[in-house]
Formats: sequence, C-alpha cells, structure tokens
Amino acid sequence: MTVTGPLSGITIVDLTRVLAGPFCTLILSDLGARVIKVEHPDGGDLARTLGPWFNGKSGYLLSVNRGKESIALDLKSENDLAIFHRLLAGADVLVENYRPGVMERIGLGWESLHARYPTLIYAATSGFGHSGPYSSYAAYDLVAQAMGGVMSITGHPGSPPTRVGTSIGDIAAGLFTAVGINAALVHRAKTGEGMKIDVAMLDCQVAITENAIARHFAGDAPGPIGARHPVVAPFDAFPTQDRYIIIAIGDDAAYRKFCATIGREDLATTPLFLTNTLRLEHQQLLKDELSAVLAERSGAEWLTILRAAGFPCGPINTIEDVVNDPQVAARNMIVEVEDPKAGTVKLFGCPIKMSAFDDPHRRATAPELDGDRERILKEIADDDQR
Amino acid sequence: MTVTGPLSGITIVDLTRVLAGPFCTLILSDLGARVIKVEHPDGGDLARTLGPWFNGKSGYLLSVNRGKESIALDLKSENDLAIFHRLLAGADVLVENYRPGVMERIGLGWESLHARYPTLIYAATSGFGHSGPYSSYAAYDLVAQAMGGVMSITGHPGSPPTRVGTSIGDIAAGLFTAVGINAALVHRAKTGEGMKIDVAMLDCQVAITENAIARHFAGDAPGPIGARHPVVAPFDAFPTQDRYIIIAIGDDAAYRKFCATIGREDLATTPLFLTNTLRLEHQQLLKDELSAVLAERSGAEWLTILRAAGFPCGPINTIEDVVNDPQVAARNMIVEVEDPKAGTVKLFGCPIKMSAFDDPHRRATAPELDGDRERILKEIADDDQR
Repeated sequence: MTVTGPLSGITIVDLTRVLAGPFCTLILSDLGARVIKVEHPDGGDLARTLGPWFNGKSGYLLSVNRGKESIALDLKSENDLAIFHRLLAGADVLVENYRPGVMERIGLGWESLHARYPTLIYAATSGFGHSGPYSSYAAYDLVAQAMGGVMSITGHPGSPPTRVGTSIGDIAAGLFTAVGINAALVHRAKTGEGMKIDVAMLDCQVAITENAIARHFAGDAPGPIGARHPVVAPFDAFPTQDRYIIIAIGDDAAYRKFCATIGREDLATTPLFLTNTLRLEHQQLLKDELSAVLAERSGAEWLTILRAAGFPCGPINTIEDVVNDPQVAARNMIVEVEDPKAGTVKLFGCPIKMSAFDDPHRRATAPELDGDRERILKEIADDDQR
Repeated sequence: MTVTGPLSGITIVDLTRVLAGPFCTLILSDLGARVIKVEHPDGGDLARTLGPWFNGKSGYLLSVNRGKESIALDLKSENDLAIFHRLLAGADVLVENYRPGVMERIGLGWESLHARYPTLIYAATSGFGHSGPYSSYAAYDLVAQAMGGVMSITGHPGSPPTRVGTSIGDIAAGLFTAVGINAALVHRAKTGEGMKIDVAMLDCQVAITENAIARHFAGDAPGPIGARHPVVAPFDAFPTQDRYIIIAIGDDAAYRKFCATIGREDLATTPLFLTNTLRLEHQQLLKDELSAVLAERSGAEWLTILRAAGFPCGPINTIEDVVNDPQVAARNMIVEVEDPKAGTVKLFGCPIKMSAFDDPHRRATAPELDGDRERILKEIADDDQR
C-alpha cells in the first residue's frame, strides 16, 4: 500500500498536529516519502478528537493522515527522547508546527539539531513565524485568515465577516512548507547540507492575497465583492432560469463572441461595454442585461451552449456534486482507504499526477495512535545489531 | 538582484500566462531558479493588459512576475521554434498552462520533448487536467472555484454565490505544481530522469476542500456557514463594542479558561456548553451569550485581554491593515521592486524563509515583453562558439 514516488526513500519525522503540518506531510507521503507521526502518548494529535466520525474514528484525522505511521513518544521522558533521536538519526526531514520556542525548551531547537544532524532539514510551520513581534501569539486557521486580509475581500458588500469555507489559513501554509521542504531536498542533493525552513501562516495569507495587495498600492481599497472578479468583467456568477452559473469572459474578443453566442450582438457594440475597463466601470448595468437574457433558459442549457462555443463556464457545485463528478472520478481525486475501525472510507486524492509513477486508488489508512510502535522499535534494534 | 536559493542553477522555461503558472514560477524564482518567460510577440502574457496600473505598467503582471526574464517567440515560426529548442536544451524544467492538446499541435508535446530531452521536467497546469471527459473545457479561476465546491461552502446561509476573495483556483494549482516540480527535481537528482507533471485546477480545489469531503461522506451536507468553524465552537467572528474580532477556542480546557478570562465562569459549567460537541449543537445560543459580554468593551481591549491569556484571536484586517502590520514588515512579506516605468512598487514577498539563504527586500522587477532577448540570444551564440 506504500505509494512509490519521487520522494521514495525519504523519511520524514512528523511532530505536527491538526492541519497545516499534517496537510504538508500528507502531500510528501503521496509523493512517496515515509512519514512517521510522532504523537504525545496522552491522546496524540488533537485531530483524533474532531469530527466528522466514521464508526468512532475521526474523519478529520483520516482526511489528512492516510498513509502515515504513528509512534507515541513523550519527548519530556529521557527514554522516549532517546528513541526520538534514533528516529532523527535515520531521518531526512523533521517537521513541527509548535509555537516558536517550544522545540528549544525541550532541547530540540534548530541550532542544536543542526549541530548534531547536519544533513537534517528542519521545517517549522507556525502562526506568525519564528521572528517578529507576534511570534509568540497563538493562531488557528481563522486567525490567519482574518489577520492576513483574505476575509476582508471575501463575501458580499455589507455582509458580516465571511471565512473562506475551507481552512485556507492552514492549507496555504502546508503547501508552502511542502514546496520549501522539496526545494531543501534539491539543495541537499547538491551540497549535503540541511537547512531550517520557517513558514508562517500569516505570511502565506499575504502571499495568496497577491493581487489585492497590488491593488491597494495602486490606490484601490479592496473589499468584498461577492462572486465577481476584481479587474475583469463579465466574470461572475449569473442567475439563469433555475440556478446560478459561472461565466468568465477574459478579454474583448471573447466578449464580442460571447454576445453573439447568447443572441445579443447589440451588447458587443454598446459604447458602455466596448472594453474590459468600460465593462468593469458599468458592470452592474451589464450584469442586469445579461441576467435578463440568461433567465430565458436553464443553467444546464446555457452551459451546453457556452461550452460548445468554448467559453470558460460551469455550475456552482455542492460537495455532493463534486464527489460524484465524472471528471473528478476520471482524475482519481477521490481515493479509498480500508480502515479496521472505520471501514471503507473515501477521501480526497493527490492532485500531482506524474508520468513516472502510479496514482493508486486504494491508499493506506491513517494510523492508530502508537500503531506502528513495535515495528519502528524493531527497526531501530535491527539497526543496532548491524 | 538575482535571488540565491536552493534552486540556484536551475533554469525554467516558462510558457505560462496570467496566474496559475506565473504564481508557480514566481515561487521557483524566489527559491533561486532562473525563469525565462517565453511570450507571444503579439502582446505577450494577457496579464500585461490587466490592472491595477502603476504609471501604465500592469500591477497584475508585476505582482507575480518580478524577478523573471522575457523573450518573445512565436512558436509557429520556424526560426523562433529553433530558438525555443535551444532554450529547452539548456533548461531543467518547462512549465506551460495551455489547454491540453495545444503543445502537441505545435510539436511540443511531452512524448516528443521527453524523447529529445530525457532529463527535462515538463509541468502542465490546466483547468481540468490532461485526462478525463472535461479535459478540453476552458477554465479560469472562478470556474475552478465553482466546480470544485469551495464556493458552495463559502458565504452566509442564503447569500448569493460567494467567490473566495483571492484567486485560490489558480493559486492552489500554482502551489501544487511548484511542489511537483521540486519533487521531480529531487527524483531527477537521484535517477537523471525527467518526468511529466499534470496538475488540474479542479483537482487542486478538491484537495483543498478536504475536510468538507470527509463531512460529506460521513453523512453531512456541507454548506456556507459564515465565519464559523464547521466542527469546533466557539470558533467564529464575534461583534464587540466597535468591530468584529476572531476568537478561536480549540478544546474543552481552553473553553473553560476562556469563560473565566471574560468573567463568565457560569458559561463553563452550563450543561449545554460542556463539550465541543454540545457547544457545536448549541452554537447560536452560545454566540448570543458571548456577543452580549463582548459588546461591553472595544475589539482592541478584548484582543489585549485574550492575547495576554494566550488565546488564538485577532482583528479582521483590511488589506491596508495587512500591508502596514509590524509583523508583516518584520517578516519581509512586503518587498520592493524598482521598475523603470512604474517606479518603486511594493509587492508581496516570499513566505518560505530559509536559514541557508538571504531574503532580500529589494527584488528585480517584472520584465518588459521581450526585454531580455538580446542577452538570451547572445548566451546561445556564446554557447555555440564553445
């Protein structure tokens, strides 16, 4: 059940919990790395206590920990700390998402680990990073989303605060950490040197907010604008006879063709709508015009017409629509694990498809707390005998 | 001005336009790779026509193309195609985000390139991927957000469709492609082999929607829920005397301490609120109780009190707040470019902080279309003479 991939042969010691770190190490695991989750004996990863539930097993845990191994170690116990060091001695990467300073207090800070394991890559994911005035502040996804600005540009004008519906505060940090770890592995292959990677959830929110930052410095004041695009029009969710659909027209030529396709050639030559800049300026008027036409047919009919003409368009899918979508199935984006407790569970797959490796549909499940202890200890003992 | 990093010495030939691809290659550039943007002579990257504007230069372009080089080549011209092949011969990675089939039609598909350049890594980012029934459909960010399900869980119950305020459809694909390219470089360092990476925007939306997919399969029907957390409470935006603030309480022990901190010990022992499961069930009642207390002080006062007690909390920052935040400054997340046309422009920085490399505040600007032609052609000529 182990996945073979570009990171096969790489061992990750994983101290992370809940989401940002586990999302990162799930990607590394899907790329072939061996991920050993080191959890506290007292309950382990907090995700183990969070729903949704599958026969009493946490779906929160399963979702981002499939394919990993688990050993429970109390790093404050001398014996367990010795086992942890044996793991580090055989590892390529250590990942942790404690608050800054926690690793130093238990003698596992970057400086001392680097001195002892010079080839080890040390990746830290935290709310605000290992420097700066907020470094010691606690953060969860929602705090990063709020402080990073993405909430201020999500939602409808005048609506109460709106969170991005998925935990993008954690997930963006997990992704950037995964990029950093892989890049550090490239560097190590060349030089033999490990390095520390320090990724902050707040910094990652700043990075993904990119265009809004440019707009701010250009004198704009970005705010929530519903479903429309900030600098392109028409590029929005439009009502049809029965449901909203997405229509995304990227440039003037496409706009003219679009007007012809929906039988409103007149809108192509209306002076107020001639260029993207003009359409942006008069977008409400344009939206009203388009909505009136679109109300004449169902969403499905319009999508057939617009797709035949090559326009970027689509339905607004529910999660149920997504998991039953034929394209999602064809791309193996819903995979299965067979869990002794939860039974067969479907989870999201790996979006990095590689010509050199298979993309198995059946994947290994998430480990029980301490579920791989015996085998891991035996491996250490075997190594000692060599 | 060139950034030194783990990817120094790596050359990327970059055919990508607008956002998903350019976001990916910006990260690679920030990690030290040389990125040569190959643009069509007829206007180049569409981003060059999109605002915001800095003295007539596109901020859209600047935001995700700083530090890259540009050469204009028409791949349908024999002479330009020959130059393109000279670039590929010296490159480590080719990245493109055309619709599937376009590269094959101009003789640059993976199969033929792999035969000619066996060590080349070929990364394709597209709306729906290089396989499956929707493969040929057009997509933009908004289409991926809508079809991938994230819009169905973003917003307030009953609100019109709500887009994630940043282009997460493009950005997630750019990030996963960057992870894949780095992993392929790790693999190539070991084996000498190139590979094709095929990343679809839709697949990446499925991946980042992770927990909602688990909730669906556990029998839930995830929908928009404003700013609150789907499986943890209290974990939401709460009104205070003057503004909303974020309070995120992750477990029962933290909840009890939180009640004491706000002077409402009684809420800690209210039977309806004893556990996370109960608080989720009665979350509106709990929110009403908490909002009443929080209305007694300003947001800033509450944040001071809650931070002193160690709770994850924070303001909901506007983009202006973000770019002026002392933590964002301390982490060098707003960098500067000096552009001959636009002047000094501030843009988002790189969130991967590495012990082995500097994180310069001054960065190279985005190139003019074809701005590096002469130097690149001279390099090729010099190579020929060797």
